[in-house]
Amino acid sequence: MRIYLDCIPCFLRQALEAARLATNERAVQEEAMRVVLAKLAEFPLNESSPPEVGWKVHRLVREVTGNKDPYAPLKHSFNQKALALYPRLIALIKDSNEPFETAIRLSLAGNMIDFGAQPIKDIDLEQEINIALKIHLDRENISRLKKAVEKAKKILFLGDNAGEIVFDKPLIEQIGPEKVTYVVKRKPIINDATLEDAKAVGLIDLVNVIDNGSEVPGTVLSLCSKEFLMHYNSADLIIAKGQGHYETLSEEKRPIAFLLKVKCPVIAKDIGYKIGGLVIHLSNVYNL
Amino acid sequence: MRIYLDCIPCFLRQALEAARLATNERAVQEEAMRVVLAKLAEFPLNESSPPEVGWKVHRLVREVTGNKDPYAPLKHSFNQKALALYPRLIALIKDSNEPFETAIRLSLAGNMIDFGAQPIKDIDLEQEINIALKIHLDRENISRLKKAVEKAKKILFLGDNAGEIVFDKPLIEQIGPEKVTYVVKRKPIINDATLEDAKAVGLIDLVNVIDNGSEVPGTVLSLCSKEFLMHYNSADLIIAKGQGHYETLSEEKRPIAFLLKVKCPVIAKDIGYKIGGLVIHLSNVYNL
Repeated sequence: MRIYLDCIPCFLRQALEAARLATNERAVQEEAMRVVLAKLAEFPLNESSPPEVGWKVHRLVREVTGNKDPYAPLKHSFNQKALALYPRLIALIKDSNEPFETAIRLSLAGNMIDFGAQPIKDIDLEQEINIALKIHLDRENISRLKKAVEKAKKILFLGDNAGEIVFDKPLIEQIGPEKVTYVVKRKPIINDATLEDAKAVGLIDLVNVIDNGSEVPGTVLSLCSKEFLMHYNSADLIIAKGQGHYETLSEEKRPIAFLLKVKCPVIAKDIGYKIGGLVIHLSNVYNL
Repeated sequence: MRIYLDCIPCFLRQALEAARLATNERAVQEEAMRVVLAKLAEFPLNESSPPEVGWKVHRLVREVTGNKDPYAPLKHSFNQKALALYPRLIALIKDSNEPFETAIRLSLAGNMIDFGAQPIKDIDLEQEINIALKIHLDRENISRLKKAVEKAKKILFLGDNAGEIVFDKPLIEQIGPEKVTYVVKRKPIINDATLEDAKAVGLIDLVNVIDNGSEVPGTVLSLCSKEFLMHYNSADLIIAKGQGHYETLSEEKRPIAFLLKVKCPVIAKDIGYKIGGLVIHLSNVYNL
């Protein structure tokens, strides 16, 4: 997906949040903002997707502030909050007449934990679960995705954020962990999950977890490792969580099921849903 | 008031809105954004108030796009919407047991029509009136302001936005138009009112209206005309509408009653109210 001009104020908002997480020194925060402003003034916007620019913005903030992982405390906190809710997720699946659909809904509930697309704020995860259990979902797409999942032998699951990865566990269990490879980022970027988070929440005890060799939000294939690309090219089905994956992969010719909560007006316009909507967007999946 | 780093993303949001109002050409909009980004990267933030930077941002957008008044249609539209509600404002004052307080509340309701502090959106003016009639106001400050108004012989009323100026008419009537001089901007800036707006809504038939010789949001004294400064320095009381006036005059040693609706987190923090709150902030008014 191309960059909209609306992304520019959003990059500055992200830069400021990251700078404030990274340091308490106002002069350093201001310097980070100036460096980002100057970079964006020159940036070839038409050649990149929003996550690629976001990556460069966050890298500049890290360089100026000297903090390699400003979001680390937030990631830890949301991993713990999500783990505390995990028994409730299990109970909801157990009590459900449609456990696959419920698992999709819970996975989508977790996608609210995204501090790139939206300002940092306290998120009421219980409320997110309640909303996700009731909100409109495209039932036909759920049914198609379920068939594709059953048919597929190798599924690549592109994870998104720390904390959110706990909400993906029920869906992996419904799919069958043995045919899933779960993907995280190699290095910290915003609050995206890394192997450290996958370990912290016990995801590595459930499923094979790899990193994509990259620290770019979403999945920019040209910046991923050979190992990841081998998985990507050989999978029968790719499940991709979050806006960043839609922004970077929506024009790819692979069978991809995008699962995301719409959090910004640019995505809302592009994908045709309202902000707050839960989306199952199937791309070339019918050709399986 | 000094600039907070939070103002930077907001300036970019304003620049984009102004550029989109000014032209439909995406390339020109992008160029305007780049010019604003480059300017902000170098800008001495500590030497200016937010409205002064906002002025420079909007001036750059006008220069790049060649549109001298991007907000003209919005201003016209809100003047007309406000005029359509004027009979209701009159009726509310007539039916009120506390007409001065009701006039203050209506004047504050109109301060929602501000497209600097907040994104451009449709504003339900009837809803704003209903909120303003019920919301908490500092009654002691209303009473003090009423006494100051009664005591003052020369009152300078610093108006804010097009449309909003209609909502100030009942307050001017309560004060007594003969002792009021009402101030607008000399040239268009964002949706601030000019003499053209004062004529369009008939304000000039009620009260003496002057311009301040400037096109900066709020009131930056060093950029105002001598005529305005004469009024400013000789007034017994100054009533200043909107966030921009608080941002530019809050540290002045004159008797100023700031009337504003809080619309941004920076002002909320600085003034100690929540977003959406209606504020009567009296500065040196007791010394009258």
